[in-house]
Amino acid sequence: MKLNLLLTGNELMAGDIIDSNSAMLAEQIKDFGWRINKKVTVGDELSILCDEIDQLCTGADVLIINGGLGPTVDDLTAVALAKVTNTAIAEHPEALDHLKAWCTLRGFALNASNHKQAMLPQGCEIIANAKGSAVGIKLRHRNCLVLATPGVPSELKPMLANEIIPALVTLFHSDHIQTIRLGVFGLGESAIQELVNEKLADWPADIELGFRASMPVLEVKLTARGENASAELAPWRAKVAELMGDHLLGELPISLALATINALKQNNLQICTAESCTGGLIASQLTSIPGASQVFPGAIISYSNAVKNQLLKVSKTTLATEGAVSETVVRQMALGALDCTGADIAIAVTGIAGPDGGSPEKPVGTVWIAWGTAQNLKTQRFHLPFERTGFQNWVAALSLDLVRRFVLELPEGPDLLKRYQR
Amino acid sequence: MKLNLLLTGNELMAGDIIDSNSAMLAEQIKDFGWRINKKVTVGDELSILCDEIDQLCTGADVLIINGGLGPTVDDLTAVALAKVTNTAIAEHPEALDHLKAWCTLRGFALNASNHKQAMLPQGCEIIANAKGSAVGIKLRHRNCLVLATPGVPSELKPMLANEIIPALVTLFHSDHIQTIRLGVFGLGESAIQELVNEKLADWPADIELGFRASMPVLEVKLTARGENASAELAPWRAKVAELMGDHLLGELPISLALATINALKQNNLQICTAESCTGGLIASQLTSIPGASQVFPGAIISYSNAVKNQLLKVSKTTLATEGAVSETVVRQMALGALDCTGADIAIAVTGIAGPDGGSPEKPVGTVWIAWGTAQNLKTQRFHLPFERTGFQNWVAALSLDLVRRFVLELPEGPDLLKRYQR
Repeated sequence: MKLNLLLTGNELMAGDIIDSNSAMLAEQIKDFGWRINKKVTVGDELSILCDEIDQLCTGADVLIINGGLGPTVDDLTAVALAKVTNTAIAEHPEALDHLKAWCTLRGFALNASNHKQAMLPQGCEIIANAKGSAVGIKLRHRNCLVLATPGVPSELKPMLANEIIPALVTLFHSDHIQTIRLGVFGLGESAIQELVNEKLADWPADIELGFRASMPVLEVKLTARGENASAELAPWRAKVAELMGDHLLGELPISLALATINALKQNNLQICTAESCTGGLIASQLTSIPGASQVFPGAIISYSNAVKNQLLKVSKTTLATEGAVSETVVRQMALGALDCTGADIAIAVTGIAGPDGGSPEKPVGTVWIAWGTAQNLKTQRFHLPFERTGFQNWVAALSLDLVRRFVLELPEGPDLLKRYQR
Repeated sequence: MKLNLLLTGNELMAGDIIDSNSAMLAEQIKDFGWRINKKVTVGDELSILCDEIDQLCTGADVLIINGGLGPTVDDLTAVALAKVTNTAIAEHPEALDHLKAWCTLRGFALNASNHKQAMLPQGCEIIANAKGSAVGIKLRHRNCLVLATPGVPSELKPMLANEIIPALVTLFHSDHIQTIRLGVFGLGESAIQELVNEKLADWPADIELGFRASMPVLEVKLTARGENASAELAPWRAKVAELMGDHLLGELPISLALATINALKQNNLQICTAESCTGGLIASQLTSIPGASQVFPGAIISYSNAVKNQLLKVSKTTLATEGAVSETVVRQMALGALDCTGADIAIAVTGIAGPDGGSPEKPVGTVWIAWGTAQNLKTQRFHLPFERTGFQNWVAALSLDLVRRFVLELPEGPDLLKRYQR
């Protein structure tokens, strides 16, 4: 099945909107063994739209048009389709019913702008829109199936899943595609590829190994097609998992916060944080996970030395002699937080996020991390040479991984970040 | 100047990467009055690439190709350009020098993969890459200037700004475009458009009013072109600012956290937070701003009732009788945080982020916010009906705006969120 995609919208061409719809479409059709052959994006101009529709239909099985179905004058998809197929624009009874129902549900009368959305190329079919006012359009041109879809992602997504893909499956040959997505922290893409080349030299040609970097977690994908895809993937998933070792967080969707919370739950442990340079980011990542309250009683964000001293009982003398970014302070912060919150495990971080505040001995990017229990508290100094937000994100990621490893009794790591130890 | 854009990469077609490069290009050229005429995206396949280069050069002044300059076998841009222009691939001395210098700087020898990046269409010029190994390619085809650029955004950005746009300015007519970008919180796009239609009926045709939603802050853009653009914009910027009133945060880049920190600095005030349902998100947003330490001593993340009681001195009886999500508790949290941290102003939040934990009286999405000083502490209940992460983000945004308004002695608001008051 040869599928082309036409995206339309001045806001896309002007860079006011970044297109995520085509990635969503590619993701959804990939599981059936299909891909987008060619993707064209143009502004809202009738003659250009007509030319592109004509060209992209030529030699293709399917053209999906995205955008231009809205109520305003610059929404031109219906008009362009009518012009290209040499038909009139006419009121479509089903589309009108949909619009009336949509307005009634929202408590207002159908106005002229919305009525425009019922004016479609004569004789076309409509595609149901469960979320919005704009119905999709289905017609044939130059022996190609043309499907016009709304530009709003939340409307497109269910229309693809519930209407368009089921229709395509009945019309075209599809493969069964199975994908396993593993979340890995602390190994880079090239390191993994080298490991696979070296240790899994008999990698089968029909299993595709892919990567997607979504910092800080790397996605490792194994894809196979055909009836036996699942069975074929299973042993290779196991082999890859063994190669990744303790860097494997689990199958996606997984985040470091979720992996850490799962490890804590399994071991019936509670965690607290004492944060200086991350300013609450670690606590915020933990509490973004539903059910975090089971393992997280609370945190102290001790940005100033006064709060470090008053709430966490960090010694004023130590702060004066060793400075806030020091091993003794980070230890005292962790112990103070355990004391305040009653948690079993602490993460404490104190560092220099920048852009100011560095010195030759403690440059911007320096951080002390403490993690563990009151009886078994680990500390390590790192230098993470990233700008402020990047630094804060890496400190949070690394801290969560250190705790995950501590709770699961894994070796300290991860490999990729050892080079930043100081 | 008619400019086409060709993006290449299997990862783009597969949806593994979302293209942000074309938005970056559109943004950069917009200030010169140029726009992208047509954008085509294809996978890494030589014949398709060659066809598209040929087609997109026809009738265009400039074709920018993005991607396919890397060291691996699926990077085909140089080969495609040689084929289309009927020239040989040859070692380019300047490109080789660049590659050798790039490798030396990183402490490794030039390998075969990297050497491939010096094999370019004979007779082409190169475009300097300040950030990466891949130089750009400049040649002419069918009377069109072809510029091949790297796909890595951090390499493309300086190449556009420092090499490509200056070159285009010398070759083609450009307009002087001036844009003012205002950050607004708590007014919607349609509300602003209606305000403008109603109150500024004499809006000049040559000033473009645009919007970009980047939750929670809305960007309002005023654009004019020509020598007098700045002078022309000034009075209309003032009129729009007056219409936005206290919803205007300032010129972009501005965030609610930055606007709040600026207000605190101006008034020499310090802020603390006591967070339950946001779990550190407000503190984390404040401390993402460089220099936050001037106004932020720290925060208590009191997720459990025990921590609310022990650190913030919230009464156990109140917790038992009124529940953790109540006005009395949020007041006590705020007062406790002021006491612990010595700050002048507190934000306290306690609510039900979901997905579980709601009841008919306090459904998921309910939140009590307290803000102000110990002597003048405001409280308000809201119901923000968004899923967990959306809820946490809106509570953080709203809290910061309430404090900004408090410190600047503005009316309580913002308008858009009043409907969520309970």
